[in-house]
Amino acid sequence: MSATNDESLQPAPFRSILIFGMGMMGASLAQALRKHGGPGLRVDGAVRSESSAAFLRGHNQADQVLVCPREAQIADLDLGAYDLIVLGTPVKSVERLAALIPADHPGIITDMSSTRREVQAAFAGRPDLKFVGSHPMCGSENRGPTAARPDLFLNRLCILTPLDDGEAILTQRVRSFWESIGMRTFELSGPRHDEVLSYLSHGPHLLAGLLALWAHNEPVDTAIAAAPMPITGGGFKDMARIAGSNPEMWTDILISNRDFLATGLKEFQSQLAELIQQVETGASEDWLAWFDRARDARNLLCGYPRESEQK
Amino acid sequence: MSATNDESLQPAPFRSILIFGMGMMGASLAQALRKHGGPGLRVDGAVRSESSAAFLRGHNQADQVLVCPREAQIADLDLGAYDLIVLGTPVKSVERLAALIPADHPGIITDMSSTRREVQAAFAGRPDLKFVGSHPMCGSENRGPTAARPDLFLNRLCILTPLDDGEAILTQRVRSFWESIGMRTFELSGPRHDEVLSYLSHGPHLLAGLLALWAHNEPVDTAIAAAPMPITGGGFKDMARIAGSNPEMWTDILISNRDFLATGLKEFQSQLAELIQQVETGASEDWLAWFDRARDARNLLCGYPRESEQK
Repeated sequence: MSATNDESLQPAPFRSILIFGMGMMGASLAQALRKHGGPGLRVDGAVRSESSAAFLRGHNQADQVLVCPREAQIADLDLGAYDLIVLGTPVKSVERLAALIPADHPGIITDMSSTRREVQAAFAGRPDLKFVGSHPMCGSENRGPTAARPDLFLNRLCILTPLDDGEAILTQRVRSFWESIGMRTFELSGPRHDEVLSYLSHGPHLLAGLLALWAHNEPVDTAIAAAPMPITGGGFKDMARIAGSNPEMWTDILISNRDFLATGLKEFQSQLAELIQQVETGASEDWLAWFDRARDARNLLCGYPRESEQK
Repeated sequence: MSATNDESLQPAPFRSILIFGMGMMGASLAQALRKHGGPGLRVDGAVRSESSAAFLRGHNQADQVLVCPREAQIADLDLGAYDLIVLGTPVKSVERLAALIPADHPGIITDMSSTRREVQAAFAGRPDLKFVGSHPMCGSENRGPTAARPDLFLNRLCILTPLDDGEAILTQRVRSFWESIGMRTFELSGPRHDEVLSYLSHGPHLLAGLLALWAHNEPVDTAIAAAPMPITGGGFKDMARIAGSNPEMWTDILISNRDFLATGLKEFQSQLAELIQQVETGASEDWLAWFDRARDARNLLCGYPRESEQK
């Protein structure tokens, strides 16, 4: 895989874009479009409060910053002026906005939600709109427009989630849009997106938290209190790193994706039961084979060379 | 906690030390003692093969390098010449050596094993010997004397595992020994050591492997094959990093510590069952409280400030 070169980017296939919601992701998108989107592209933002608008205007973060205090007021904006609307609000808000966008809006609509279930269902109920879902996978630990940066999307992955297979032309335009700011793209159905992410992101996040809660017990705490420095090594620290970060963001994700998560964690549970049996009775050769399989699985999932040790 | 300053180290409280087994750890110990151990200290090594001995002699890694092809031949060495013997072989070998050291050897004996069960039991059967167990916790991904480095032990933790509480003077001498090469030390009983490490190191290692094996399934593999770059983010990669590294070393550890591991993983299993219930029915406030507890537990276990986000 070769890194995207700034100079190789094609202009965004739109003339006029509204980013609805200018948090860290939305404001970064505005910066990215103004840096990479090509000449003559209009990039407007819509925010909830006058103070946010004043901040964004003061820092020249968009061509125009609209104020939309309540979601329902999206219908009062001149949406017809935009050939792309990017919904950059939290998933529950995107779900409500889907119902509030005026009928037969002619432009394309996409979003940036981390889970797809509610958003895809909401837009499935709006066949009059031209919607293709997007999940740009970028670090989002930091919040608010002050944390925005124009290269947030560069060489990161965007998963496109069209509502059905018949939307090839629409999907291609949204794909070109994300590629214009340096993202790499591919398609998954909404359910498949949520299922895959439950294994690669949401479930691991829960297991990191559970690891910390599990290891926080009387014998461990007593030993830690007696030790002159942390007993935990790099392995534990790396595994527990994401435990407890961004509770608000993760709470929304976990509730949105609860079905796939519960199914997946039940599989983990039954695989753990087998592992415990091996702990109790396994011989050296069982463990050597198990570690080989685990390393191969990790290398495949992380995109490492097959034999990598990743020390 | 202030880092140990090289100049502040006290000389090793021994005159003549034999390191039995000169792998990465043993050879690093010889280097550390020759760098930090003070003047007039004799540091000899014992290895299994002539070729290892030739390598160590050629690189001047010890004052004298003895060859001991079979463990039983330890009795033929002039052990009386040493006031400290450090057993640096794998745990199963240390267990056998405990039975082979001549009766009433006057010097102190310690080891460097990662699990304590077999070693402590073996020396409990030798009340004629002056044994205090040691687990110097240093990275040991790389093997063999070529990977040795003199600062391996500097500012790292050594857990001392005396056989019983009556060995205060003996323990103090072994403590001073490890501190002479810059380690920080504290005491745990052998069983408590193995229990605590099952939560902070051995169990997490297994869960990292299980995570990789669990996420390696049909929907995930299909999505990965279609994606233009890895879908996994930093969280998954960090959690799976240790999966499958050093199978031989870990196999020994897991088999040695199977009792505490099985008990601990069963607790994880029952806590996972509760977590799955929360996934299925939990509301926002349940998750926000859960994440708070997980973050606090992680911060305590890793020695971070209580409010740390560790992004």
